[in-house]
Formats: sequence, C-alpha cells, structure tokens
Amino acid sequence: MSDWLTSLKTETPQEGFELAITLARKGVEYTQPSAAIRKKLRPKYARNADSLTMVSQVIAIHYQTVAAANNYWK
Amino acid sequence: MSDWLTSLKTETPQEGFELAITLARKGVEYTQPSAAIRKKLRPKYARNADSLTMVSQVIAIHYQTVAAANNYWK
Amino acid sequence: MSDWLTSLKTETPQEGFELAITLARKGVEYTQPSAAIRKKLRPKYARNADSLTMVSQVIAIHYQTVAAANNYWK
Amino acid sequence: MSDWLTSLKTETPQEGFELAITLARKGVEYTQPSAAIRKKLRPKYARNADSLTMVSQVIAIHYQTVAAANNYWK
Amino acid sequence: MSDWLTSLKTETPQEGFELAITLARKGVEYTQPSAAIRKKLRPKYARNADSLTMVSQVIAIHYQTVAAANNYWK
Amino acid sequence: MSDWLTSLKTETPQEGFELAITLARKGVEYTQPSAAIRKKLRPKYARNADSLTMVSQVIAIHYQTVAAANNYWK
Repeated sequence: MSDWLTSLKTETPQEGFELAITLARKGVEYTQPSAAIRKKLRPKYARNADSLTMVSQVIAIHYQTVAAANNYWK
Repeated sequence: MSDWLTSLKTETPQEGFELAITLARKGVEYTQPSAAIRKKLRPKYARNADSLTMVSQVIAIHYQTVAAANNYWK
Repeated sequence: MSDWLTSLKTETPQEGFELAITLARKGVEYTQPSAAIRKKLRPKYARNADSLTMVSQVIAIHYQTVAAANNYWK
Repeated sequence: MSDWLTSLKTETPQEGFELAITLARKGVEYTQPSAAIRKKLRPKYARNADSLTMVSQVIAIHYQTVAAANNYWK
Repeated sequence: MSDWLTSLKTETPQEGFELAITLARKGVEYTQPSAAIRKKLRPKYARNADSLTMVSQVIAIHYQTVAAANNYWK
Repeated sequence: MSDWLTSLKTETPQEGFELAITLARKGVEYTQPSAAIRKKLRPKYARNADSLTMVSQVIAIHYQTVAAANNYWK
C-alpha cells in the first residue's frame, strides 16, 4: 500500500476521531484488499445493529491511541 | 459532518460518561449515516441483552479515554 | 438523568469494583431507559454463561478506569 | 457482599493472575448471585472453546489492572 | 497449580509475545483444568477463523501487559 | 518458531500499523501452525463483515502497544 499514515497528530478531537475511523477501516482493508468485496459486504453489516456496534468498538480502541498521541488535545 | 466534538474536557465524571455515550453513537453514525436506518434498528437491539451489553462495552472503552483526558476529575 | 456520578474516588478496591458494576449498568440504562424492559431481559441473560461473561468484561473495562482514578488504592 | 477485596497488591505475578481470575468471577457473581445457577451453567461453557476464550479475555483485562497496580512486580 | 509465572520480564519482544500466549492459555486452563477436555476442544476451534481471531485477541491484550512490564524492550 | 520479532520500533506510524497486523496474524499462527489450514479458512472470513471487524479489532489492540512503544512517533 502507498503512504496513508504519516502522523497520529490531529488538530482537533474530532479529526482524531475521524482518524480512528480510518484506522479501523484500514485494518479491514489490509485483511480484505478487494474494494469490490468490501463494498458488497457493506449493505448487510450497515443494517445490523451488532455489526455496527462492533465497528464502533474498533473505532473506540483506535481513538484511545490517537487521543493519547495527541495528549488528549489539552 | 459538522463540528460535534471540540474538547474531551467535561465538568464532572457523569458528563464525561455522557460524552462517552456520544462517542459510541458517533462511531455508529459515521458507519451508517442514515438516521432512518439507525432508528429502524433500535427496537431490536434495545430489547436484546447481549446487544445492550455490547453497546455498554463501547461506552466503557470511550470512558477510559474521556476519564484520562480529564485526569479522572481529580 | 439526575446526578448519579460525582466522583470516581472510592475508599477501597472493592467499592471501586462495585462502582465499575454501576458504570456497566448505566451504559445499558442510557441505551434502554425502560426499567420494565431491562427487567424482562434479565432472567434470560442471567442464565446464559456467555452473556454473563460479556457483562463481566464490561465491568473489567470500567474497573481499569476506576482503579487508575484511585491510583490503584496504593 | 462481605469484604472480598482489600488490596490489589500481590506477592508475585502468578498471584496477581489468580486475583485477576477472582475479579473475573466476581463480575459474574454480582450479576448472577445464585451459586446454584452458576454451577448449572458451568458444564456447558467449560466445554465450549469460545466460551473459555471469552473468560480468558476477561481475565486478561483484569490482569492489566492488577499488573499496573503492582508496578508489574518489577 | 504449581509455580508457572515468576516474572513478566523477557529478553526480547518475541519472548514477550510467547509469554502472552502462555498467559492466554493459562486463563483457559484455570477455567477448564482438564487437559483431556481442552485437547478435545482443540480440533474444532483451531479450524474456525473467528475462534482463532478471538484467541489472537486475548494474546494481544496480554501482550499489552507484558510489553508495558518490559518498558517495550526499549 | 524462528526469530520474527526483534523490536517494536518502527520508522513511521504506518509501519507500526503493519507491525500490528503481523502481531495479530502471529497470534493466529501460534494457535494454528498449519499454513494449509489457515489458507483454507481465509476465503470464508475474508468475505464476512463481522469476521473482518474482529480481525481489525485485534490489530487495533496491538497498535496501541506498538504506538506506545514508539512514543506515538512524536
């Protein structure tokens, strides 16, 4: 993969949250590199509450990392 | 999305908990942006104990971040 | 909701554990505010080992936060 | 419940691990106080690999807390 | 159980990883002490991707502890 | 196994992410050493959204460790 992550620093907590989302997605992308297959899976899990909660959990874990890297934007 | 998170600081541990809930929900919202679909999913998972426990877990993970950002409101 | 959490400080590690339990339950309460529905769900998950393990996990995550907030009661 | 946890300090990393197991079980006990029901659930989950992995995960989370409380027995 | 864990210190990050695996297995062993039953469960979960991912997750959690105990082998 | 991990240090946050992926896979490899079996499992879980989310979660947990080991590449 080309460069997609050069820093964990973000301007605001919200941008940090959005970076956490990117990290969660990248974890999936590295495991399933086919964009076509990932797209096909989307309608199903995006309409399943537990699947969405699971995704939200991965974001939460990455957000811990990003927030620490930014010293919680203090 | 418009600005929804400008700081992780809260006045009290309870407000911090409520911010953690917001973060958990935002993780879902970014993944399923349709409010109509999310609303449709609600009755089912809100009556399923394991689904509720899973949501509570995501809140717990975010609460770790928010609590650290607030130095545990010491 | 009225005030239910004004501090993460507790006298003992055990009270901290009990606070972690409260936090885990509050995560469910905010998501399913109906006490009647929550009560109805109880008999089933309280007799399912995996459901109980999941609840125990949420408590464990909150206990990390509470323990850190109390500097591990050192 | 009577006093069961007065300190997170242990002599060795192994005793710390055993304390983490106690904490994981206490999370279940507070949620399902009936020893009879818990005993009834045991044969099933103790013969299910995923259930055992889930229990092991809760222990792992508590072990993080106990290890930090003991400054990793350095 | 006899002594199996006297220190979280390891020479290298890889040995630390292997210690994390031991900790994950010990969590199962304490819960299901019968080696015969554990052996019987193995063929099934070792051929199930989600079961393997769950095991990998417990290892990951323990590796956080072991890595911190070793100051990340800096 | 031969040496595969001599340091948690990486040049960039992205290389750190890729190391986290390696760690997640190694957790599976140690549990299921047969490359043939692991390859056989791949088509199924790589086309299942929840399985991919679970893998992404393990990566996220390891990334916390790797990021801390690198002081967040500050």
